[in-house]
Amino acid sequence: MQGDAVTALAGLPASVAVYEVGARDGLQNESAVVPVAVKAEFVRRLLAAGLTAVEMTSFVSPRWVPQLADAADLLAALGPAPEGVRLPVLVPNERGLDRALEAGVREIAVFGSATETFARKNLKRSVEESLAMFAPVIARARVEGLAVRGYLSMCFGDPWEGSVDPGVVAGHARTLFDLGIDELSLGDTVGVATPGQVVALLDALAAQGISIDQLAVHFHDTYGQALANTLVALQHGVTVVDASAGGLGGCPYAESATGNLATEDLLWQLHGLGISTGVDLDALIATSTWMAGQLGRPSTSRVVQALTKES
Amino acid sequence: MQGDAVTALAGLPASVAVYEVGARDGLQNESAVVPVAVKAEFVRRLLAAGLTAVEMTSFVSPRWVPQLADAADLLAALGPAPEGVRLPVLVPNERGLDRALEAGVREIAVFGSATETFARKNLKRSVEESLAMFAPVIARARVEGLAVRGYLSMCFGDPWEGSVDPGVVAGHARTLFDLGIDELSLGDTVGVATPGQVVALLDALAAQGISIDQLAVHFHDTYGQALANTLVALQHGVTVVDASAGGLGGCPYAESATGNLATEDLLWQLHGLGISTGVDLDALIATSTWMAGQLGRPSTSRVVQALTKES
Repeated sequence: MQGDAVTALAGLPASVAVYEVGARDGLQNESAVVPVAVKAEFVRRLLAAGLTAVEMTSFVSPRWVPQLADAADLLAALGPAPEGVRLPVLVPNERGLDRALEAGVREIAVFGSATETFARKNLKRSVEESLAMFAPVIARARVEGLAVRGYLSMCFGDPWEGSVDPGVVAGHARTLFDLGIDELSLGDTVGVATPGQVVALLDALAAQGISIDQLAVHFHDTYGQALANTLVALQHGVTVVDASAGGLGGCPYAESATGNLATEDLLWQLHGLGISTGVDLDALIATSTWMAGQLGRPSTSRVVQALTKES
Repeated sequence: MQGDAVTALAGLPASVAVYEVGARDGLQNESAVVPVAVKAEFVRRLLAAGLTAVEMTSFVSPRWVPQLADAADLLAALGPAPEGVRLPVLVPNERGLDRALEAGVREIAVFGSATETFARKNLKRSVEESLAMFAPVIARARVEGLAVRGYLSMCFGDPWEGSVDPGVVAGHARTLFDLGIDELSLGDTVGVATPGQVVALLDALAAQGISIDQLAVHFHDTYGQALANTLVALQHGVTVVDASAGGLGGCPYAESATGNLATEDLLWQLHGLGISTGVDLDALIATSTWMAGQLGRPSTSRVVQALTKES
């Protein structure tokens, strides 16, 4: 059991919104298809644990990601989002947006790359072309009254180009906000970032006139750096943090990219610092342990491992 | 390969001394005895990678820790410490000090507990009794011109008592400095600490008149918090950080206590922040990979796992 919170570190927010990506970003990398009933139970348990932002699935082409071919069935099983709860779905293009609107979705997310090489590998087009592809999607979503989250992946480094210029990332971010997104999630898709890079990117985004209130951080723990990076982001005013229950997922196209930051590891830090999240850690650990059983392998979360270890 | 260092985070030291504990703290928990030639090769490789503080072994009773019964043989195999290199050995009592002096050791370490329950379990006496036991050891070591490092374990929480009062820890620290130690390593033996606790303890130590220059931090990554805690310690002026090559070791008496902070994960953070250590990360990864082969299981370091993964 975690001890009492100690609030001796100044400059931190009183509360943080945890944006849970396990159901989409986590499961999309599972090669064995997870039954839709299991996915629905997973999302229900995440919400019951107190999470208020759960990315559920993606209306990507079933040919690209067979795991998420059941997106419409999952949304039908779950029904509309409760009041005050965000249940976004990823939408890669206009066809995806059509499907999302048919399913009654109230928030979508679009997924871009900060680097050219990853854009070509993951999106089959240049960064500029991919942003241009999002323009009509975001415009129509706004006409329909949907909220729109943007992602930029590879914001700090990628396996092909090495270091990424924060000014370039901030330029792409500016474009996405100009297209109409409400929130941008800054992804360290390969987990290489260290805290100085986080500060440099947040400074570059501020120089583009982007408010810290519109930013989220999405760190991977591949090199063990996610929570130190998170701490620095919080100290600079970020209050939305992406994480994946049990550490599910990674990136299928990127070298060494296992390791989304585990939501439990994040909660241990936040709650220890006295930052409220509204999430019940024990309920979430039980959920991740159950999901690990469904997938047939242990959670990569260090907190889950520590607290479920046989003594 | 790690990208360029980014120094945008202010208030950090220009360099950090990494205090390597894998050869002692790491190996002492291995049940299968590692041959002395392998231990000697391990220490030689750690030094060749650029580490300048390597805790080699312990003159604990062979009945307690059979793994380290070869301490004198190891020291004989390694010879005297090169100029500017610290090669301390742990010494539990006066008999251990006799053996260390016979072996020509120039620095010892004594290992205390911040909590009563752990003191009784690990040292078979109260905190006060254990500190009293160190008094003649430290006094004689100083007369002999040795440097003395102190450890306090369970500084932030223990599995039996929960939260630990920083004022109590600081009082024990004051006693150790009054007895004559040169440096104190603050241990989070079960890995539960979060950054606010680090600040609270450093504040309490300052209130006892203890200089930050005499402090080291020793974090475990059991709950994934070690690098965030390290970062905060660095921002508060700590410049000596304990870590274990490949993440070797833990604590045999403590629940869920696998997970010394891996030296490679620490180096990734420090080098990424532009903090110099003098240690060659690639050489250290090669050393930990070799040692993992000797022990027959993979390193727990996330950096080692990421950079040695089969693509």
